[in-house]
Amino acid sequence: MADVAIVAEKQSVPGDKKVEGLTMVVFSGDLDKALAAFIIANGAAAMDIPVTMFFTFWGINIIRREGPVQLLQKKTFMESMFGWMMAKGPNKLVLSKMNMGGMGTMMMKNEMAKKNVYNLPRLIQEARDQGVRMIGCTMSMDIMGFKKEELLPGTELGAVGKFIASADDSRMTLFI
Amino acid sequence: MADVAIVAEKQSVPGDKKVEGLTMVVFSGDLDKALAAFIIANGAAAMDIPVTMFFTFWGINIIRREGPVQLLQKKTFMESMFGWMMAKGPNKLVLSKMNMGGMGTMMMKNEMAKKNVYNLPRLIQEARDQGVRMIGCTMSMDIMGFKKEELLPGTELGAVGKFIASADDSRMTLFI
Amino acid sequence: MADVAIVAEKQSVPGDKKVEGLTMVVFSGDLDKALAAFIIANGAAAMDIPVTMFFTFWGINIIRREGPVQLLQKKTFMESMFGWMMAKGPNKLVLSKMNMGGMGTMMMKNEMAKKNVYNLPRLIQEARDQGVRMIGCTMSMDIMGFKKEELLPGTELGAVGKFIASADDSRMTLFI
Repeated sequence: MADVAIVAEKQSVPGDKKVEGLTMVVFSGDLDKALAAFIIANGAAAMDIPVTMFFTFWGINIIRREGPVQLLQKKTFMESMFGWMMAKGPNKLVLSKMNMGGMGTMMMKNEMAKKNVYNLPRLIQEARDQGVRMIGCTMSMDIMGFKKEELLPGTELGAVGKFIASADDSRMTLFI
Repeated sequence: MADVAIVAEKQSVPGDKKVEGLTMVVFSGDLDKALAAFIIANGAAAMDIPVTMFFTFWGINIIRREGPVQLLQKKTFMESMFGWMMAKGPNKLVLSKMNMGGMGTMMMKNEMAKKNVYNLPRLIQEARDQGVRMIGCTMSMDIMGFKKEELLPGTELGAVGKFIASADDSRMTLFI
Repeated sequence: MADVAIVAEKQSVPGDKKVEGLTMVVFSGDLDKALAAFIIANGAAAMDIPVTMFFTFWGINIIRREGPVQLLQKKTFMESMFGWMMAKGPNKLVLSKMNMGGMGTMMMKNEMAKKNVYNLPRLIQEARDQGVRMIGCTMSMDIMGFKKEELLPGTELGAVGKFIASADDSRMTLFI
């Protein structure tokens, strides 16, 4: 599967390609890191820099759709377990530090609202409006049993080769 | 605020700008990651590579001043809470793993001293001496209520646009 | 030591050097992050992109040899402690989240096997076969008392300057 996942998506010839933009791996599913990722993405997009976000591992949770989803295929028991145990979408994420049973996360959200900082769902919406490219990692989805219809609408799917092709054409690369 | 924070700080024209240097986001406030960040920063600076460090979220704790600070503005109760609950400066940080109530952190510090590896305060001083640019993220400071006078002297302030402008001119970008 | 570690390994002249490839710091010793690092490394290598991995701090654990090792030098008590307390090689690593006393890690490994995703030892082997350059950070090894013979055969040793020289010649840089 690791081999299958790596398709030859690199068409560019080194030297004569345009290297610009920001490509990031969003590996973490922590609220604080998700906020950082989207604040950076939106900041770059506002400066007319093309942005690609590749969501993998716990990062998939950030782009999960809330509410009930009609699945086209049945999940195995273990796949359902992954789905139940992990945060379902941006409103369910918690801080990586000082969560304190949810109190720290609530405190951070309240302070952000008071200081007029966009919350995560709104940051994601803004990213979408600004044309930020959002890709869900197919290998992670396969392992944890997530289906395309469980992700936010408009999310692209892709394997690691798609990330690398984008990163290799970018000036900035981050692993978050 | 997210919008306000993104000012048009990108003056460079793609194609005819000099792309060099290292720009990093220091998101983490863990001792081990802070050490890694400053060892990389000092290593690059010693090789005459321009270095910019952008401290955000928990990373702000790394550049907090120790001891009492005379504040120009009063803090709200929640802002004071953030200040109390988080590590105040480089000497208060702990390891992300194996902290074991402080024992692991002490063990690591002792081994570093025995092996003549600079401790974090000294690495920060060296970075300053080598001209490493250190920027405190204004949005994080705003959310958590930190004031400029609470940061190490010489720290610049800036929003995410300042980070992106620097990263977009850099050859290397890291998120730590 | 910090000074000693930074040797002048930068031979390249800015402007006339070939900037390509991927260089990453592997700081984490978590199973999930190690998997991500090697999946990215193998993906890039399969696309004929030169890859360098610099293992530092907890990341050293990923490239520790399993089984008994005949040491050429005796370790101090504290050095032995580090060795005992940390994961010895790729099969001993656990997830950064949802480990749940090992159950979550086992569950993830099982799902990976079921979905035909390479496990970590095999990903490391594949990276080696594809010519991925793997460097162990000498400063981390010095602090924690690891000797060259404790690392996987074929691992190169180097200080932070070696990482920076490689990163500065690369198009993509990641801190994992």
